[in-house]
Amino acid sequence: MKVAIQGEAGSFSYEAALRMLPGCTPVACARSAEVFDRLERGSVPAAVVPIENSLAGPVNEHYDLLLHRKVFVRSEFRLRIVHNLIASPGVKLRGIRRVYSHPVALDQCRLFLARNPRIAASSFYDTAGSVKYILENRLQDAAAIASKEAAKVYGGRILAAGIEDDKANFTRFLLLRKSRKISRGANKTSIAFRLKNVPGALFKALSVFALRDISLSKIESRPVRGRPWEYAFYVDFLRGDDGTARKALGHLAEIAEMVKVLGVYPSA
Amino acid sequence: MKVAIQGEAGSFSYEAALRMLPGCTPVACARSAEVFDRLERGSVPAAVVPIENSLAGPVNEHYDLLLHRKVFVRSEFRLRIVHNLIASPGVKLRGIRRVYSHPVALDQCRLFLARNPRIAASSFYDTAGSVKYILENRLQDAAAIASKEAAKVYGGRILAAGIEDDKANFTRFLLLRKSRKISRGANKTSIAFRLKNVPGALFKALSVFALRDISLSKIESRPVRGRPWEYAFYVDFLRGDDGTARKALGHLAEIAEMVKVLGVYPSA
Repeated sequence: MKVAIQGEAGSFSYEAALRMLPGCTPVACARSAEVFDRLERGSVPAAVVPIENSLAGPVNEHYDLLLHRKVFVRSEFRLRIVHNLIASPGVKLRGIRRVYSHPVALDQCRLFLARNPRIAASSFYDTAGSVKYILENRLQDAAAIASKEAAKVYGGRILAAGIEDDKANFTRFLLLRKSRKISRGANKTSIAFRLKNVPGALFKALSVFALRDISLSKIESRPVRGRPWEYAFYVDFLRGDDGTARKALGHLAEIAEMVKVLGVYPSA
Repeated sequence: MKVAIQGEAGSFSYEAALRMLPGCTPVACARSAEVFDRLERGSVPAAVVPIENSLAGPVNEHYDLLLHRKVFVRSEFRLRIVHNLIASPGVKLRGIRRVYSHPVALDQCRLFLARNPRIAASSFYDTAGSVKYILENRLQDAAAIASKEAAKVYGGRILAAGIEDDKANFTRFLLLRKSRKISRGANKTSIAFRLKNVPGALFKALSVFALRDISLSKIESRPVRGRPWEYAFYVDFLRGDDGTARKALGHLAEIAEMVKVLGVYPSA
């Protein structure tokens, strides 16, 4: 099965796709909008996208796309992020003067970079893409920071493994499909809503869950385009598609200007 | 007065600093942590940092730094963001093949880039820095996207003005100082808090404001380092330092694990 991902073969999205759908064929897309385009027009049956990292926070662009595109969350997966210093075969650590990677990955390896002050960090569009670049150009004084998977895909050698500052580094990925089907065992619901700009609006919106003893696992806010200083809210709550959850959503619809159910799926 | 900013002379932070403190001398810092370092150790008496953009959303790193550093918000300012295509003198629009800027600025000029498909976009660490780079290297086939101020500072020519997709593009900046002083006319309070991970915790936290008819203008959540899937919340509410606000904060302290007042200041 073809699964659209943002980033190159060997990226963390690539790894997550293979873990969520063993045996699938990840289809690398340069931009996130392309991942959603492909899924919406049916050129792939599924997509896997990161939604938040436990250190860096939300992937804003994916929250925005979930709100505006006709896709449905079908499952979630938490991937432990391990960063590795990867170079061309034969290159030694002491010869490295530059390291390329995605800015978030560089930021998560600050202690390693501080211990190796002769290595200058350069931003690259993708972790796995930086490995591809190093290997294709057979750079002798440069390395990349990426997953073990990326080293395997492009034939790189790992010079230092697990160089991330914080081991409690996880990224939560979502499996998206076009059809609004609810998987068996679904016990988590992701929604987005917009509120009228009146005092107490968010409190009232959260009351629909609190008054029914429904736990929230996450709340996020994102700016609304064209309406400065107004926000869309994203909430994950720990209920599947049952009577109580439906009543809570009906109640929320009374209060909110707009409610969209992004997915109902088993929690990871 | 010296004011630390992140980014080069001519950046939007530079412009905001001059608008917030006319006649000040902005001190350019490469990294946001350096801005906070300088302020905390007293090498500058003030700093100006962006906290959110009405299209791109929060500046995550600055939310994290406000929580951990001993600084106080003293005022806020909303700057209208206007992007311009800037090149070396004598260079014509039809000769441009590459454009450099900060990824957020490139993302905010997507329609201009779509209308000019012969121009390839490249990420750069800073908007004003990209103008400096173009001018210092006298590039003949490249341009930068930045403020009018940046063109002035580095002697660049504006080839196309106001190329941002959306004119409702504002960035909110905060003026920070070390001392916890409350300005006259303060009618807005910014706080951060962490909650026990129990059902209804956020609802209870927001009740301390709702039950006292205190309006929230903003809520944001950020991951807590070392505690995956737990969050710190940031709330702005529309009250200065009065009896009701103090009671609400006292009530919040009963519910929250930690509360920090980030600033009490006049709303923009």
